[in-house]
Amino acid sequence: METVEVDLGDRTYPIYIGRGLLDKGELLRRHVPGKRALIVTNTTVGPLYLDRCRAALEGGIEGIKAEAVVLPDGEQYKSTEVLMQVWDKALEARMDRNTTFVALGGGVIGDMCGFAAAAYQRGVHFIQVPTTVMSTVDSSVGGKTGVNHPAGKNMIGAFYQPRCVLIDVDTLETLPDRELASGISEIIKYGLIRDPDLFVWLEANMERLLQRDPEALTYAIQRSCVNKALVVAADEREGGVRATLNLGHTFGHAMETSQGYGVWLHGEAVAAGTVMAADMSYRLGWIEKDVLDRTVRLLERAKLPIAAPAGMTKEDFKSIMAVDKKVQDGKLRLILLKGPLGSCVVTGDFDPAALEATLDVFAQA
Amino acid sequence: METVEVDLGDRTYPIYIGRGLLDKGELLRRHVPGKRALIVTNTTVGPLYLDRCRAALEGGIEGIKAEAVVLPDGEQYKSTEVLMQVWDKALEARMDRNTTFVALGGGVIGDMCGFAAAAYQRGVHFIQVPTTVMSTVDSSVGGKTGVNHPAGKNMIGAFYQPRCVLIDVDTLETLPDRELASGISEIIKYGLIRDPDLFVWLEANMERLLQRDPEALTYAIQRSCVNKALVVAADEREGGVRATLNLGHTFGHAMETSQGYGVWLHGEAVAAGTVMAADMSYRLGWIEKDVLDRTVRLLERAKLPIAAPAGMTKEDFKSIMAVDKKVQDGKLRLILLKGPLGSCVVTGDFDPAALEATLDVFAQA
Repeated sequence: METVEVDLGDRTYPIYIGRGLLDKGELLRRHVPGKRALIVTNTTVGPLYLDRCRAALEGGIEGIKAEAVVLPDGEQYKSTEVLMQVWDKALEARMDRNTTFVALGGGVIGDMCGFAAAAYQRGVHFIQVPTTVMSTVDSSVGGKTGVNHPAGKNMIGAFYQPRCVLIDVDTLETLPDRELASGISEIIKYGLIRDPDLFVWLEANMERLLQRDPEALTYAIQRSCVNKALVVAADEREGGVRATLNLGHTFGHAMETSQGYGVWLHGEAVAAGTVMAADMSYRLGWIEKDVLDRTVRLLERAKLPIAAPAGMTKEDFKSIMAVDKKVQDGKLRLILLKGPLGSCVVTGDFDPAALEATLDVFAQA
Repeated sequence: METVEVDLGDRTYPIYIGRGLLDKGELLRRHVPGKRALIVTNTTVGPLYLDRCRAALEGGIEGIKAEAVVLPDGEQYKSTEVLMQVWDKALEARMDRNTTFVALGGGVIGDMCGFAAAAYQRGVHFIQVPTTVMSTVDSSVGGKTGVNHPAGKNMIGAFYQPRCVLIDVDTLETLPDRELASGISEIIKYGLIRDPDLFVWLEANMERLLQRDPEALTYAIQRSCVNKALVVAADEREGGVRATLNLGHTFGHAMETSQGYGVWLHGEAVAAGTVMAADMSYRLGWIEKDVLDRTVRLLERAKLPIAAPAGMTKEDFKSIMAVDKKVQDGKLRLILLKGPLGSCVVTGDFDPAALEATLDVFAQA
């Protein structure tokens, strides 16, 4: 088992990564302060792992009693309406403010359960048990929680840290291929923004990851978590360097919003968005052609999209990007690659002609 | 103008109290970091003060642009559904995370706007402009925000601090008499739990307060805010001493629940509850007769109820108090007066016969 410490002062927490961790209940229970837990999961993950998660929580001498709420599966259910079901369940079960909410599932479950925990009785305890590659390397580290609004993704939420994250890589066996690739998209991102050695490792080991080799998965996830943990520890509330984690996300969010949530997976949109960001960076003269080409090639090998969805127009991109959370006082800021492999910047200071040119290539007029 | 500093480390903020402050826009604007503000108010306060609040925000050279959302007035609208209207408006106006939400109104508006700010894009800036005595001395200090759920009051919310609180005592001119008295009930509370000099001042100046003498209002509000700020700074998340702020609230909450919310104002129920707490403290031999008599007399002079609503039974009180948030391990804890004027305790360690005797006097068999 690997342990990554996310260093946030009095809210520091561990991420456990390894095989068979869901059967090591004491790992979970040591992070449950009270006697009650609410497992939040969905109709896909629940049938596979809910019983084991409940057994892990209830198995010790601590006398923990766990309830569960099973939500519909999909990004389109990451809404305030579905969120209410979690609060309804907690209140119906008369859970008090010493309760622990446990997110068992992917990023949607983690984000929703985390925000439900942040706001229930002004804050209860929270644990993450992510079961997708995406949620292990992205949403389970950093404390971003929230739900979507029809007008934008993650518009309603909180920064709220879990007491621990438990990643059982064996649960990734049941993940659909597209979900696996979607998560790998974020791992490639860490290589691009700050970890060139990881990028090179991915170039050498992509096939092992796609075959779900547990050792390769553990390494890639642990290394991604270390990268994210270092960034988040330096900038918990996204004043500066944390924004670099959003490489490809501004373009990607526009694609998700334009298509409606759930058509493309998040990592698929990020992959295509990363290609757009790399393309724009190259047009600005900020990266070599080699970095652009290797980026496109690695995403392609992971079976990820490298172009925007057919039919998206320049106006689609522009109108959606205008309400991006990184817009400051009306000015769009982007994460762009700059310098050798593994270097990037967050900036609003770029030649708008480069953005126009990238949109010309990737979107319809 | 008086300024009270609420000392919370890097979330320290000032409370400004005085006449005509709504016309001193620079006071507000220095706490607005970006260029956009969303004023949240209701159908009662909006027609009276929205234009002035907007002018204060937009009046400087800073180029701030303020939008407004006007909600229905009343505790029954402190719901997740109405909360959504705030987020809808902010998103419709494409407000980014450098926006400032401004609560213009009483406690319901402050609580709802505060939670809306805490969760909008994971937290935007927040300013309070309370326009009731109750909200100036109670809900505007301490960072408790939230909305009600059909299963309980304030069940969904956050601890979230404003960047400043601006109290223009001139806005209290338009407050209905019952609302004025309701707020004074909380001011009397500060005298009883920790500030005997304030209590003595109230005995000498109650008529000035009831006549809304601006100087008297400024003094009473400033002194109340200092008291609450000191208690909150010592115990931000309600582990200990903050519970003393609930003097009279356990009995009062039983009255509000029994009658249904909105029949009595919050401060009216607290007043009658305070008389019951003082009566019980006297029966326990913890205070002199003089303290009891002066408490009853002062509340009476403020035109507040000093007895429970007609028809409430002992069983009504007992069944509702049994599920109070301060119950620990099945034992009811109360805030009771003990010692000279201005001293209190939070305790479950009292002779139950005293509680029985108080209920015998104040409730029907």
